Amino acid sequence: MICSVNFPSDTIEKAVEQLSRFPGIGKKTALRMTLFLLKEQKENVDRMSQAMIDLKTKVRYCSTCGNVSDADICSICSSVNRNKKLICVVKDFQDIISIENTGQFSGVYHVLGGVIAPMDGIGPDDLTIDQLLLRVREQGVEELVFALSANMEGDTTAFYISRKLEDSSVKMSAISRGIAVGGELEYADEITLGRSILNRVPYSLNTQ
Amino acid sequence: MICSVNFPSDTIEKAVEQLSRFPGIGKKTALRMTLFLLKEQKENVDRMSQAMIDLKTKVRYCSTCGNVSDADICSICSSVNRNKKLICVVKDFQDIISIENTGQFSGVYHVLGGVIAPMDGIGPDDLTIDQLLLRVREQGVEELVFALSANMEGDTTAFYISRKLEDSSVKMSAISRGIAVGGELEYADEITLGRSILNRVPYSLNTQ
Repeated sequence: MICSVNFPSDTIEKAVEQLSRFPGIGKKTALRMTLFLLKEQKENVDRMSQAMIDLKTKVRYCSTCGNVSDADICSICSSVNRNKKLICVVKDFQDIISIENTGQFSGVYHVLGGVIAPMDGIGPDDLTIDQLLLRVREQGVEELVFALSANMEGDTTAFYISRKLEDSSVKMSAISRGIAVGGELEYADEITLGRSILNRVPYSLNTQ
Repeated sequence: MICSVNFPSDTIEKAVEQLSRFPGIGKKTALRMTLFLLKEQKENVDRMSQAMIDLKTKVRYCSTCGNVSDADICSICSSVNRNKKLICVVKDFQDIISIENTGQFSGVYHVLGGVIAPMDGIGPDDLTIDQLLLRVREQGVEELVFALSANMEGDTTAFYISRKLEDSSVKMSAISRGIAVGGELEYADEITLGRSILNRVPYSLNTQ
């Protein structure tokens, strides 16, 4: 419906078109955003657009783990409080934000930059797997935690890496799959529920 | 929860903060937008931010009606297909987009730039009422259609203008109240808004 709008100005039409490129932002929301900008002070609009441009010019990637960073080494890799012998393997740097948000992980990370997906033409050489193997072998890493998506691509990737490290003494684990905390059994899908039964954990009165 | 995130980069944190200034965009959506920009080509991000800046530098306002425009006179005022004797009075240029979208109005517009709201310190002199009265008297306008929000401020504004034009022969009407009382024009659906223009009712001092 909104597509048929005759915008009173090409500049506005272009802004709506550009803002609706954001994921989850439709034409109607983009129009509301555009009208908001039109009413804003110029300095504020400049600040917003500059923050967007800075993302492409200022953000760097940690040379150790591949996380986004303001410096050559990210704040996690350079922290003395993090256990460098424990590496969590993730697909993308945004997974790091999610895991950091839990406050439950004290090790460091390795960003693969994707997962092995032959259908999309992504093979092991397109990812940072070689750098990960080098870190494991050279830095005496004790444990790798795979925090990859529970699908064929994630499983394939974890399998590939574990095969490459078969001869090393590094311990490997994967984040547990199961019913969400507070989740109702009846709403869980069968595969998740099935896996959570197979991977059941010992129950004690001390477990909360 | 998201508020406690330790962002891996100040640049990202700043982008999230700036993008969440958009109306209806929370921290979580702003983070998704930021991650999208990080993965985008630099040219595309430049184009998006330029479109935002252009809104503040290129958009002009029609010298006749106050609508946003790329030129001195907007496309509606300069169109030969529009009835210049019929003026629809709106609060804001975004109301024009909504009404144009219905395809039910063939006249021209007048943007007041607000409504009389003594509580907010907005009086008749802060609006373009004088220009409207001038247009009515000098251009032989036959009908004014008030398309203002159905609340006290909208009613007061229509009342004020109608009093000023009591001595003239101009016909006055208001869009019909198919729209919920207290509702904003921009949230009305097109059919209701279109019908309310077709069913506009004569405006007199006795109409509440």
